[in-house]
Amino acid sequence: MKKNLKILLKSRPTGMPTMENFQFVEEEVPVPKDGEILIKTLYLSVDPYMRGRMSDAKSYVAPFPVGEVLTGGVVGQVVESHNENFRVGELVTAELGWARYSVSDGQKVRKIDPTAGPITTALGVLGMPGLTAYFGLLDIGKPQPGETVVVSGAAGAVGSVAGQIAKIKGCRVVGIAGSETKVRYLVDELGFDAAVNYKTDNLHAALKEACPNGVDVYFDNVGGDVTDAVIYRINTNARIVLCGQIAQYNLEKVDVGPRLFTQLLIKSAMVKGFIVTQYAQRANEGIQALSQWLREGRIKYSEHIVEGLENAVDAFLGLFRGDNIGKQLVHVSDPE
Amino acid sequence: MKKNLKILLKSRPTGMPTMENFQFVEEEVPVPKDGEILIKTLYLSVDPYMRGRMSDAKSYVAPFPVGEVLTGGVVGQVVESHNENFRVGELVTAELGWARYSVSDGQKVRKIDPTAGPITTALGVLGMPGLTAYFGLLDIGKPQPGETVVVSGAAGAVGSVAGQIAKIKGCRVVGIAGSETKVRYLVDELGFDAAVNYKTDNLHAALKEACPNGVDVYFDNVGGDVTDAVIYRINTNARIVLCGQIAQYNLEKVDVGPRLFTQLLIKSAMVKGFIVTQYAQRANEGIQALSQWLREGRIKYSEHIVEGLENAVDAFLGLFRGDNIGKQLVHVSDPE
Repeated sequence: MKKNLKILLKSRPTGMPTMENFQFVEEEVPVPKDGEILIKTLYLSVDPYMRGRMSDAKSYVAPFPVGEVLTGGVVGQVVESHNENFRVGELVTAELGWARYSVSDGQKVRKIDPTAGPITTALGVLGMPGLTAYFGLLDIGKPQPGETVVVSGAAGAVGSVAGQIAKIKGCRVVGIAGSETKVRYLVDELGFDAAVNYKTDNLHAALKEACPNGVDVYFDNVGGDVTDAVIYRINTNARIVLCGQIAQYNLEKVDVGPRLFTQLLIKSAMVKGFIVTQYAQRANEGIQALSQWLREGRIKYSEHIVEGLENAVDAFLGLFRGDNIGKQLVHVSDPE
Repeated sequence: MKKNLKILLKSRPTGMPTMENFQFVEEEVPVPKDGEILIKTLYLSVDPYMRGRMSDAKSYVAPFPVGEVLTGGVVGQVVESHNENFRVGELVTAELGWARYSVSDGQKVRKIDPTAGPITTALGVLGMPGLTAYFGLLDIGKPQPGETVVVSGAAGAVGSVAGQIAKIKGCRVVGIAGSETKVRYLVDELGFDAAVNYKTDNLHAALKEACPNGVDVYFDNVGGDVTDAVIYRINTNARIVLCGQIAQYNLEKVDVGPRLFTQLLIKSAMVKGFIVTQYAQRANEGIQALSQWLREGRIKYSEHIVEGLENAVDAFLGLFRGDNIGKQLVHVSDPE
């Protein structure tokens, strides 16, 4: 008899989450009612923004309730259907539980076109991270040919796509990442013009060398000291795309740093935060552009796949250790 | 025999400027050459941004050279003309020296329309400060009817106009200022909906009470702790207009404070610095709107006038002590 396994938020983490904050529950596989479908999880996406949802501070997404199953992006297969819009065997993507099986009413479940790319891309370059890069860079950053674009968290799922789109737009692209392997990957595999290892390089000196004409667009996934260093090199009319602040997510109290507003003022710079769901109406535009670049080989991607739902928490924590190059996924099961 | 008096930058200040940083020089009245005019200074404007020009750090305006006359906005009278575009007796405004007399080639000298308002308004509500408020608030802040607009440095030349324009646009307007007199002036004279004294009120509690629906637009002249407090109350999609950071200008090293980018991120907020000269092409639009509001009594203004060029330095330093309500001017001489 098949069993379901699901992962609940047991308690709200203070600082870096630990295994104690999570609870694994085995139960019967849920039974879909009329109008519902049963989805078997093939891949689960773990993403830095989930850390915010584990706290109860106000944010742009509601907190995960304590005692409930965690949710995230899933690629799955319909294995039972009582909904005329879905057939058994179809591949879908949706926001579902950290679980082997989930029941859904089919609302907000999107079918995957398996000809567009491997199904895992629905959680990466052709999913939320790819769209985040696309709209953040193009709609807020507005990079112009010849400008210098700096991306922090550049080897991650969002940063790697943002940097490659900037290259397509004719920019000089500089990545910031946290290991030599990542730095080489950015330059050798993805075609970044330069990359800086913030853990070993003198960040101010390395950025000065990598950005001889200053910084016009900064796509920020990280925050903290890295962002401070970039902001001291921005040009007049620079655009700073606030996509993530992963360096801040596990701090137990508000971090302090140099006040940057005077820098922004004297450079007439703009900083703009966003969340990809604001661009939901334009998602198809983004998917089409990204699919084409993918087919043309102009965008490459990596995946870092951890095996087994029982390792999902560790895969999530790995995001903060910098384990992943590209999209961090959990392989849960194979299609039937 | 008339003498000229002018004020030079003797040395670059560290921290708050002192009289030691300035030098008074008496000399012959300069003689205009062919194509030039001699302008007698009637009023000199002193403005917070001048502090930045006294340092040699890179900024949006070139530093004042040491040993040279300081410059600023002047309303003056043409008292000698060898330029066919100007007649003796005409009233003009221009960027000229902190001096009793200046020679100009007439470039960038604008004639004042004495029917638009008192001539001093060319340095205030109908000059640089008024245009700064107009373009910063409307072009960057984009206030919508019913939104809450907070203005720091609200009793100053720029802030007082920004707040009144926001009222004209149908917003709830909350001012932040540094004395009970200023707070009362904002509410009783200018029609702000509420005002907070950052020196005596509990800023967080007072802002919460004054902004029950949060903050949609923040027009920031001040920076520092005041700005931190406002940013913790911004709404989703807030716009923050970076106009000035007067709390930072006299600090000897970079100030530290809470890192605010996570707040901006989770609120999808925008921060944008600007300088009014970027709107030079649209200056007439601003002057026309401001003139009409002034005639209609919908914008009021105050002036804080110090008597005598010999007191110009003290008038400038008074900006940082918070001496002024409205526009700080120095009365240098009367028209002939």
